[in-house]
Amino acid sequence: METPNFNLNTEIVEKGFRLFAEKMGHPTQVIQMMEFDLPKYHDIPSDNVFLEILASPIDYADLLNIRGLYGTQPPSFPLFTGNEGIFKVLAKGPDVKKLDIGDIVFINSYGLGTWSSHLTLHETAVVKLEQPIDIVSGSMLRVNMFTAYRMLHDFVKLNNELIVVQNGATSHVGQTVIQLCKSMGVKTINIIRQPQLSETYNILKKMGADEIVTIEHTDNVDMKKIMSDLKKNSWFDQTKVVLGLNCIGGVYSQIVENLLACGSTHVTYGGILKKSMEASISSLIFKNIKFVGFLINKWLQDNNNSKFYDMMLHDTTKLIHNGSYFRPPFKCFPLSQYKSVIETFHNDRAHSILPYRIIFTKNINFIQHLATIVAKL
Amino acid sequence: METPNFNLNTEIVEKGFRLFAEKMGHPTQVIQMMEFDLPKYHDIPSDNVFLEILASPIDYADLLNIRGLYGTQPPSFPLFTGNEGIFKVLAKGPDVKKLDIGDIVFINSYGLGTWSSHLTLHETAVVKLEQPIDIVSGSMLRVNMFTAYRMLHDFVKLNNELIVVQNGATSHVGQTVIQLCKSMGVKTINIIRQPQLSETYNILKKMGADEIVTIEHTDNVDMKKIMSDLKKNSWFDQTKVVLGLNCIGGVYSQIVENLLACGSTHVTYGGILKKSMEASISSLIFKNIKFVGFLINKWLQDNNNSKFYDMMLHDTTKLIHNGSYFRPPFKCFPLSQYKSVIETFHNDRAHSILPYRIIFTKNINFIQHLATIVAKL
Repeated sequence: METPNFNLNTEIVEKGFRLFAEKMGHPTQVIQMMEFDLPKYHDIPSDNVFLEILASPIDYADLLNIRGLYGTQPPSFPLFTGNEGIFKVLAKGPDVKKLDIGDIVFINSYGLGTWSSHLTLHETAVVKLEQPIDIVSGSMLRVNMFTAYRMLHDFVKLNNELIVVQNGATSHVGQTVIQLCKSMGVKTINIIRQPQLSETYNILKKMGADEIVTIEHTDNVDMKKIMSDLKKNSWFDQTKVVLGLNCIGGVYSQIVENLLACGSTHVTYGGILKKSMEASISSLIFKNIKFVGFLINKWLQDNNNSKFYDMMLHDTTKLIHNGSYFRPPFKCFPLSQYKSVIETFHNDRAHSILPYRIIFTKNINFIQHLATIVAKL
Repeated sequence: METPNFNLNTEIVEKGFRLFAEKMGHPTQVIQMMEFDLPKYHDIPSDNVFLEILASPIDYADLLNIRGLYGTQPPSFPLFTGNEGIFKVLAKGPDVKKLDIGDIVFINSYGLGTWSSHLTLHETAVVKLEQPIDIVSGSMLRVNMFTAYRMLHDFVKLNNELIVVQNGATSHVGQTVIQLCKSMGVKTINIIRQPQLSETYNILKKMGADEIVTIEHTDNVDMKKIMSDLKKNSWFDQTKVVLGLNCIGGVYSQIVENLLACGSTHVTYGGILKKSMEASISSLIFKNIKFVGFLINKWLQDNNNSKFYDMMLHDTTKLIHNGSYFRPPFKCFPLSQYKSVIETFHNDRAHSILPYRIIFTKNINFIQHLATIVAKL
């Protein structure tokens, strides 16, 4: 019954393993690993592909979701965890036409459980990468890179005379914003929370940050000083600051707000401080600043298969492909080390200067090479 | 030298008087009355009209402006006070073609000092009322009625299946929102701060309020109770609550936010509590609620002479003309009583159940009839 289109062309393994949460709770307590039988080729539905993990990152939102703290609806349990990643097509059903064995794909749908050694998915749940790109960066396309890209394209028409201000500049979205803006000729003002260590400063500068503003004492933010420092740049003109990006909240959101021009847009895509966003009545009424939110899952749900999607995929993968994209610091672990990895995630996140990303991958042998691997298509 | 177009057809008076603020400060301390010589006909520029006051209201924003608390830029002093009103054309220059002596006009531009017995203005600063309307209601077209109208037309396309929620329902804008929504078949949920006295309740109901929610204890707002009360209405469906209007701030703004559907718009047009507006991260990101501000002066500046302006003027004056518009409670005073009027304004405003409007007019004889006068054109 073997069909010509179906061919398991790698080493034969019979067991897969994946992470899941049995119930809502703290990730260190509720995440478990399960072993499962890999499907026989004749069990794979004809329009499905059988995939092997290359890289799947932990997003902060993934962990919040397991705790029931992400979104307005609590998630259903048991929950397969992980929401993005790069996989390799090991086999495909006979009706799959657009993908081939050996293709490198990334997972485009939400909630499929990408912290898994293997996945069997409908062909429409994955997107083939058309050009060779760094796997580490590519594994983070869907959540952080797409979020950065959309926020720079959907709210204000940017051009090389305009300025974007963001807090959370050291986050992966923040780093991507800096680099996308650089490629568009748009200036960025980057507000960071940590003391301005030369390491952080140099990395962000290398990525293309035009100005970095460090806030050490939140009780007494000196807007006059910030403004006068900004004015030392010949390119700075407050009427050009048309877009503000906020993922922190509290006083960091207000600094973004204060720097914005009349008629600009303030986009919230996260709330690390877990506080409501405050907007002054004056900004709303007299400066006509719009305060909106952005969620990539919602956008992808509404715009899948659109020309905007294709342009975004093209532009972001091209940036990685060109080698001009600085990926964030990262550490790779096999899925089997999930307990210690997740346990230290929160602490590391809170204390690291430039937060590194944690990426799950297949096994330890693969990891040793991952940093230098570029997917060959 | 008398021209045929120029004819002072009322009793001859030689002196006018107007209110002005010499410097920034509390209105009760800095507002003064000045007497001035009325222009001789040959002094009136050829494209100007010479006007006599019928009614000019005090807006709360007028008093804030004198204190330097309104807007982002401090006003210039001395400042001629008052920003809207209905006037009668007493005379006109020879080049004025679109207006005639006896026409009833309202002042369309900001900052012209309408708390004045007479004004000499360029013809483009006034708009002729094309149908007879109640003077009291008409004098408040420009600020409050236009604000209500625009907020219901510029953010969400409303239809008779949709619901608007507002706080500050007892304000004049709030009352107008209720009545405009009623005329459009749009349901309104109205949040009020005072204890639900039957007087207030009955007036708002008579105007067309579909639901009135009273918040007496702001420390402990019971959203579950509010929601369950709302669900008793067969028309209530939270997914239909597409527009929220906020002029209070604080917890009253949050109640509006909590009642809004996904993808809706929250418009702030005032901030009585003088607090920043808070928006939850969840509303921004997961409910995709937009938080925006609205200022009628800005809109009029940008849209004067547009078809949208003409439609707005037509629709609002028609509502008054038809006799189906309930004007807010009001008291009339001659300009000469300005000291006591302004002194009691703040107290009355704070303590009255349904805030009454204060309207300046020509003299006491005129006032006695004003309540029943309908402008004859």
